[in-house]
Amino acid sequence: MLIPVVLSGGAGTRLWPVSREGHPKTFMRLADGSSLLQKTYARALACNDVSEVLTITNRDYYFHSKNVWHSQTSAGSTPRFLLEPFGRNTAPALLLGALKIRARHGDDAVMLVLPADHLIENLEHFIADVQAAAQLASQGYLVTFGIQPTHPESGFGYIRASEKIPSSEGYRVGGFIEKPSAEKAESFIRAGGHYWNSGMFCFTVQALLEAFSRHAPQLLAQGEACWEASVRKRTDAHCDIDEATFSQIEDISIDYAIMEKGENVIVLPARFDWSDIGSWHALSQLVAPDEHGNRSIGEVINIDSSNCFIQSEDRLVATIGLDDMVIVDTPDALLVSRRDQTQKVREVVKQLKQRDHATYKLHRTVSRPWGTYTVLEDSGRYKIKRIEVKPGASLSLQLHYHRSEHWIVVCGMARVVNGDKEMLVNTNESTYIPAGHRHRLENPGVVELVMIEVQSGDYLGEDDIVRFQDNYGRT
Amino acid sequence: MLIPVVLSGGAGTRLWPVSREGHPKTFMRLADGSSLLQKTYARALACNDVSEVLTITNRDYYFHSKNVWHSQTSAGSTPRFLLEPFGRNTAPALLLGALKIRARHGDDAVMLVLPADHLIENLEHFIADVQAAAQLASQGYLVTFGIQPTHPESGFGYIRASEKIPSSEGYRVGGFIEKPSAEKAESFIRAGGHYWNSGMFCFTVQALLEAFSRHAPQLLAQGEACWEASVRKRTDAHCDIDEATFSQIEDISIDYAIMEKGENVIVLPARFDWSDIGSWHALSQLVAPDEHGNRSIGEVINIDSSNCFIQSEDRLVATIGLDDMVIVDTPDALLVSRRDQTQKVREVVKQLKQRDHATYKLHRTVSRPWGTYTVLEDSGRYKIKRIEVKPGASLSLQLHYHRSEHWIVVCGMARVVNGDKEMLVNTNESTYIPAGHRHRLENPGVVELVMIEVQSGDYLGEDDIVRFQDNYGRT
Repeated sequence: MLIPVVLSGGAGTRLWPVSREGHPKTFMRLADGSSLLQKTYARALACNDVSEVLTITNRDYYFHSKNVWHSQTSAGSTPRFLLEPFGRNTAPALLLGALKIRARHGDDAVMLVLPADHLIENLEHFIADVQAAAQLASQGYLVTFGIQPTHPESGFGYIRASEKIPSSEGYRVGGFIEKPSAEKAESFIRAGGHYWNSGMFCFTVQALLEAFSRHAPQLLAQGEACWEASVRKRTDAHCDIDEATFSQIEDISIDYAIMEKGENVIVLPARFDWSDIGSWHALSQLVAPDEHGNRSIGEVINIDSSNCFIQSEDRLVATIGLDDMVIVDTPDALLVSRRDQTQKVREVVKQLKQRDHATYKLHRTVSRPWGTYTVLEDSGRYKIKRIEVKPGASLSLQLHYHRSEHWIVVCGMARVVNGDKEMLVNTNESTYIPAGHRHRLENPGVVELVMIEVQSGDYLGEDDIVRFQDNYGRT
Repeated sequence: MLIPVVLSGGAGTRLWPVSREGHPKTFMRLADGSSLLQKTYARALACNDVSEVLTITNRDYYFHSKNVWHSQTSAGSTPRFLLEPFGRNTAPALLLGALKIRARHGDDAVMLVLPADHLIENLEHFIADVQAAAQLASQGYLVTFGIQPTHPESGFGYIRASEKIPSSEGYRVGGFIEKPSAEKAESFIRAGGHYWNSGMFCFTVQALLEAFSRHAPQLLAQGEACWEASVRKRTDAHCDIDEATFSQIEDISIDYAIMEKGENVIVLPARFDWSDIGSWHALSQLVAPDEHGNRSIGEVINIDSSNCFIQSEDRLVATIGLDDMVIVDTPDALLVSRRDQTQKVREVVKQLKQRDHATYKLHRTVSRPWGTYTVLEDSGRYKIKRIEVKPGASLSLQLHYHRSEHWIVVCGMARVVNGDKEMLVNTNESTYIPAGHRHRLENPGVVELVMIEVQSGDYLGEDDIVRFQDNYGRT
């Protein structure tokens, strides 16, 4: 039994302004319309013998991740979620993942670890490589997937292959090398037998736990304590990791804690095409260039510009005389960068975080379990939102002390609780919710409900909300 | 008597995306918060003996121009407007201006021609120069203001000075030179006695009309016919130029038609500082640079960028590693250009015009006689506007066949006619206007009225409007 374990945690600060704290890069829609998480699920489900996929992610991303899962056909496969209260690196995450899988499937289950921020082409090769890895894993090996370097990249870690494992494509690992200098990376390529460390792994639950027991026994004990504390909180669909005990576990990567120390670690050279979606420069390569080398998403006019990447959601972008530039446009923030310096976006994000700037955390459009809301205008005295509610979904029964709300249905049908009344509000009808009234909005129909909300009051913060009842456990 | 004649016609296509067909550069707000037209009015009113200012502009800009006039103290001075149905160059405009001024003030009135797209510093020198020019004009001269070149600019016309006019600062004109080559411009600076042609003039009505009679008699006859046809349409406040006869007048500049041919044309070297706000590069010079040479308006984060100009209305702009770039951000269009190529914005505008693109014509915020409206969202099925109505102002009594409107007052008080009812709608109250209902919105109060309008219907074009009564002559 093969269980893909999808690691979907990272914020992806280098992909701001599209990626934000509340909308990490795993949810970003790429040029082809699908997200990295969607692609990872599709990849996981394409492998043989997969009846269950475990996603390890932050608990804030649970509903959004579940929506991504359900947006595709998953033919008989069950999604399970292990939810972190905060990021704590890969060793604690995979240890808890192994304990969760053992509880249901025993020691022999094979874990296939898939970071959700990779792009993999050539699915047939991927499936074949995974099958080869699973066979080696079943023999007790800890398998890493090594990527044949295409250039002397100094931003990745490398794995050195030593002797071949008989009757397999794998090699014993001769060493892990942290991000090397450009010269060293160059020498690896000349020498051959050095691979990029993809962060993808394959091992049995037993092999992983034994390695923890041998090389990181304290971490194992901490992880087991955390698991014990967490199981009390689990439902069938998802398991919330216990915050107090989780914070006790060492914050360390699986490479450092286990892989670099294990005797039975092997590297399997991958035959699939792999890329790490780590920067705007990398992302831009996914869009086909025009005859001047410009790659555009959205409405763009280029005058004498070349080799630029331009992404715009809904505004016209005109460029004049640019070369080798990246322009990324969103409704509330714009990035203009030289193409070879896009990694410095992290510096921008750092400054925004320090200022507690709105564009650090959320987009104008925010995902909620029931759908989305988009802030169209926020003047301080009034706020206008477009609220989209999925068929059958419902917001919580709630109350605001400081604001009244005017609701106008512009698409679909709403069922509204307003004080002690309950009514249906049709397209082109409206209702008024005075401050202090309990109210609830629901989409009873089979098409999406779109509503315009005009809030009016002295205080319009999102925290002026009292929830009485909620379908998503948020009271 | 000195009558400033403000020429405020040009679209300013090189200043897109802020300047647009419906919002020409004369109305653009500069870094100091005031517009070029405002500055021109202030300049005109600062001169001695000014009791009236004539603005020649497109009729579409009448209400906006009048609002600009009334936004400042104009101490006893009367605004008058001559409204063109379309642009027809400076000779027809100034000829009709002269005929209009003669009709009220006679032949001896002195016209001071001020294009509204200039920036002039050092007001004392300006006033003194205007006084000197007016004296020369009263002696029958056609006075041009010459600007001492600061660099060999090949984008301007030049005026060559010949012999000095006794007991004055003026010189007879030795010749007009069209935009010269860079080498020729260089040689003018070395030789001295060559001035930029500012497009500012000073002459009496009589001197101008005599010059027309001598050098362009046909044009004079056409202009007089147009004036005769136009006076039937004039009110005290403004005069609409007759379209049919106006289109018959030759489309030619005052320089070509008169100045280059006149014997009594003189150039007065200006002592004030002058700049032509013709490009983003020129505009950027009005903003003080930081220690890296970056000039910013709005919220900007620069990482390793230098010598850039960044203007943003309401979004955060982050730049990385840029040098010598211009970024101009508006709610629906973005310009990113090399600083030395901003004149190519015209090429962008040309393409937009060909496509009949929304960003060629209007901004999201549109000026109306009664205030402004801003499109916050236009989905096709519904449209959301913020409508701001000035105290005492009123929209027309109107009707739409295809859309209903929900009105929510978020600031101030509205008087609403809705079918056969009339009511007051207070802040945080709403009303509903069904399709087919006559309705009118008015601000009876003394503070601005802000209203959110949600339109719903099969067709939401601005042309679905039947006007029954309008305070601004638009029925």
